[in-house]
Amino acid sequence: MFKHIFNPKTIALIGASNKPKKVGTGIAENLLKSKKDIYLVNPNRRKLFNKKSYSSILDIKEDIDLAIIAIPFKFVNKVAEECKAKKVKAMIVISSGFSEVGNIKEEEALKSLGIPLVGPNCLGILNTKNNLNASFAPYLPKKGNIALVSQSGAIIDSIIDIAKNENYGFSKIVSLGNEAGIDIADFIEYLGEDKDTDVIAIYLEGVKNGRKFFNALSKVSKIKPIIILKSGKSELGKSAVLTHTGSLAGDNKIYSAAFKQAKAIEVKSIEELLDLSKTLSWDKRCKNNVGIITNGGGFGVLATDFLEKENIKTLKPIDLMGDALARKYEQALEDLLKRKNIYCVYVLQGPQIMTEPEKTAKVIVKLKKKYQKPIIVSFIGGDFFKSAIHIIEKNKIPNFREIKRAVNVIKYLIYEK
Amino acid sequence: MFKHIFNPKTIALIGASNKPKKVGTGIAENLLKSKKDIYLVNPNRRKLFNKKSYSSILDIKEDIDLAIIAIPFKFVNKVAEECKAKKVKAMIVISSGFSEVGNIKEEEALKSLGIPLVGPNCLGILNTKNNLNASFAPYLPKKGNIALVSQSGAIIDSIIDIAKNENYGFSKIVSLGNEAGIDIADFIEYLGEDKDTDVIAIYLEGVKNGRKFFNALSKVSKIKPIIILKSGKSELGKSAVLTHTGSLAGDNKIYSAAFKQAKAIEVKSIEELLDLSKTLSWDKRCKNNVGIITNGGGFGVLATDFLEKENIKTLKPIDLMGDALARKYEQALEDLLKRKNIYCVYVLQGPQIMTEPEKTAKVIVKLKKKYQKPIIVSFIGGDFFKSAIHIIEKNKIPNFREIKRAVNVIKYLIYEK
Repeated sequence: MFKHIFNPKTIALIGASNKPKKVGTGIAENLLKSKKDIYLVNPNRRKLFNKKSYSSILDIKEDIDLAIIAIPFKFVNKVAEECKAKKVKAMIVISSGFSEVGNIKEEEALKSLGIPLVGPNCLGILNTKNNLNASFAPYLPKKGNIALVSQSGAIIDSIIDIAKNENYGFSKIVSLGNEAGIDIADFIEYLGEDKDTDVIAIYLEGVKNGRKFFNALSKVSKIKPIIILKSGKSELGKSAVLTHTGSLAGDNKIYSAAFKQAKAIEVKSIEELLDLSKTLSWDKRCKNNVGIITNGGGFGVLATDFLEKENIKTLKPIDLMGDALARKYEQALEDLLKRKNIYCVYVLQGPQIMTEPEKTAKVIVKLKKKYQKPIIVSFIGGDFFKSAIHIIEKNKIPNFREIKRAVNVIKYLIYEK
Repeated sequence: MFKHIFNPKTIALIGASNKPKKVGTGIAENLLKSKKDIYLVNPNRRKLFNKKSYSSILDIKEDIDLAIIAIPFKFVNKVAEECKAKKVKAMIVISSGFSEVGNIKEEEALKSLGIPLVGPNCLGILNTKNNLNASFAPYLPKKGNIALVSQSGAIIDSIIDIAKNENYGFSKIVSLGNEAGIDIADFIEYLGEDKDTDVIAIYLEGVKNGRKFFNALSKVSKIKPIIILKSGKSELGKSAVLTHTGSLAGDNKIYSAAFKQAKAIEVKSIEELLDLSKTLSWDKRCKNNVGIITNGGGFGVLATDFLEKENIKTLKPIDLMGDALARKYEQALEDLLKRKNIYCVYVLQGPQIMTEPEKTAKVIVKLKKKYQKPIIVSFIGGDFFKSAIHIIEKNKIPNFREIKRAVNVIKYLIYEK
C-alpha cells in the first residue's frame, strides 16, 4: 500500500488547474516535475500544461496507482467513488471540510471505500528519493535521512523553507490531515522499515487510537530515534486543536509519560525538533559525560550553567584563552576524545583577534573522523564563522550559535542521566 | 571623567604595534579610524602606520585625555605611573595578569594612582556616536540606542559579529575587566543619563559592591530598561567565574531577587539578551493581554501553549486559514489593535500557497504607525520571508522565526502579570 503512495508509477490529479496560487495548480506543477506518468483531471478544461485534461478519472485508459483529490468538499465523495470504480491503488484527499468541521458522515464514507487513504484535509506527501512532490508544498527539500510526519501542513511548508539554507535533508514528508484511513501509527511503522529514513520527526496535536500509536512508537524507537513535538498543552491550545484538525489534544501528562515509556524523545519547539533531527541524522546518542573547550571564559561559564541545570555531567570547561590558535584546540580536543569516560565534546569559539575559524573547523572534522564520538560546536558569531560552519556541517558535525540551543541538543543526545 | 573615556580629544596608545594579530595592532588600527588625535607609544619603533612612534608617553608634548595601556603585565605599573606624571585624564588598561590571577597588590597600585580607570584585563570601550573604537574588538557595530556592558570581552566580540547582519544597533559598549577603578555601577549610572542610550544590556558574572550595584540598578531602571544575563549559576560555573574575572558569582537566588526588586529584567541566554534588547530599543513595555493572528492552525496552538505557560493572557488565536491574503491580516490586526484591552499583538505567518509576505509586512507597518502598540511577528520560514522581515524590522517591528523565542520576548515585554 505504501508503495503506491510513495512510489506510484501512475498518478491522477483530480482538480488540476493552471490558475495562479490555486492548490490544484501547485500540485500539478509539483507532480509534473517528477518522472512519473501524470494524468490531469478537470472537466472544465481540455488541456492543462500542454497535456490532455480528462473529464473524469474514468476516462483514463491506463491503470492509476495513486489518485490525488483536490476539489471542493461537495464533490469529493462522488469522485472518490469513481476512484473506487477505477480501482486506484491509493488515494490522497487534499480537500478539507470533513470531520474537522463536523462532517463526520462524509469522512466515514471516504474511509469505507476501502482504498488506502491519506487525509482528508492534508497537504499531501513528498518523497525526495524519486523527486515526488505529491503535495502543494512549494518545493522538495534537500535529500537526506530525516522523515517528517506532521498534523499541520503549514508547519511542513515552514520547515521546508527553513531547511533550504541548512545542511540537513529529508527522506519523506507526510501531512497526516484527519487520518480517516492511514493513521500516524501506520506511517511510523512504515518509516521504521524505510531504509532511506534514519530519524523520524513528528509534529503532533493528538491521536485517536492511543494504544496503536504507543505500540508503533515503542516498536520503532528500538530501530531509529523518534522525535516528537506535541502541541495543545494549554487549555486554550487544546481548544485551538479541536477546531484545527478535530482531534482531542488530551491530557499532556499522559502523552509525555507515554513518549517516555515508548522511548520517543519529546522536544518543546519547532527549532528543537529541527536541531535534534539534524544532530541525530548525523550522530548516535551517547552516555552522560561531556567535555567542554572554549576560547572565552564567559562562554564556558554559560555552558556549564546550562549543562548542570540539565543534569549533564561535565568537567570544568577547558579555557584555552582568547589567543588560542587551532593547534591549541586540536590538542585539547584530542585529549578529551581519547578519554574513555568522555562520551561527547562541546566545542565553543568566539571571534577573537587570534582566532582561526576555518583551521579550527578542519581540526574538528579530522578528530571527529578519528574518534567517532559526538562533537557539538558553537561558533558564536556571524560572518566570521560562515565558512567554518560550512566545513563542519558538510562533515555532519552540528553547529548552534546560541549556547543554550546547543545544550538543549546535548540534553536530548544523552540517553541516560 | 566619562567624557575623557567616551569622547577624548587626544588618545595615547601605549603598546602600539603593527604586527598581524597582535592586540596592540588591533587597537592601533581601530583608533586610527576615528577622527581623534592618536599618539602611538612603542619604545622599540620609530614609526608605526606612517606616524611617529614615541618612546614614552612622557615624550608627547600635547595633553593626553585618554591613555590606553596594552603591554605585558610586568611593565604596566611603571607605565601607569608615567601616565600619572603626564596628568592623563583617564586610563584604559587592556593588559591582564592582575587580580584575576592573584596579583592583587599590582591592581591596588593601579587604582591608587587616582586616575579614572577602566580595567585592567579588558577589551576596551566603543562609542558608535563618534566612531571611537578604543578596544581590540574587530570593528564598530551599527549605530543604535542599545548600550552593552560586559564582564566578558569574548561575548562583546561575538555580539558585535552577530549584530552585523541584524537591524538593531548600539550606542556604547563597555568591557569591564576587573573593575579596579570605574565599576559596573558607575557605568550604569552614566548610561542612565546618556541620551544616546535607551536600553542597557548587561552580561554579568558577579559584582564586588552589591549595595552600590543595586542602588544604581534601582535608580536607572526607572529611566530606561536594564536587561541582565547573569552567569555563574551552577557550582561548576561559579568556579569557572573565579578563574575568569576573579569575582565571586555569589548566590544566584540573591541576585535574581535583587534584579527583581530593582526592576531590572533578567534573561537566560545571549540570544534572549539580544532579542529583548532589540525589542525594547524599538518598543515600550506593555500590560498583559495579547492578541494572536495566524494563517496556520498549528502555529496558533504552539503560540497559545507557550504564552499560557508564561501566564500571559491571550484570546483564542484568530486562525485566518492557509489561504489568507494580506487584506485578511489587515482586517484582523486592525480589529485587535483597536480594542482597549489588547496591549500587544502577536502576528504569525507561514509560507502557504496564497501567502503575501511583503504585502502583509506593509500592512503591519502601517497599522503599527497608526495604533502605536507593540506588535511581535513570527514569519516562520526562510528565504520566502527575507524581504518581508527586512520591511518590518527597518520599521522597528521585531521578527522571530521560532515561536518560543517570540513568546520569550513577549514574556519580558509585559511588565505586569
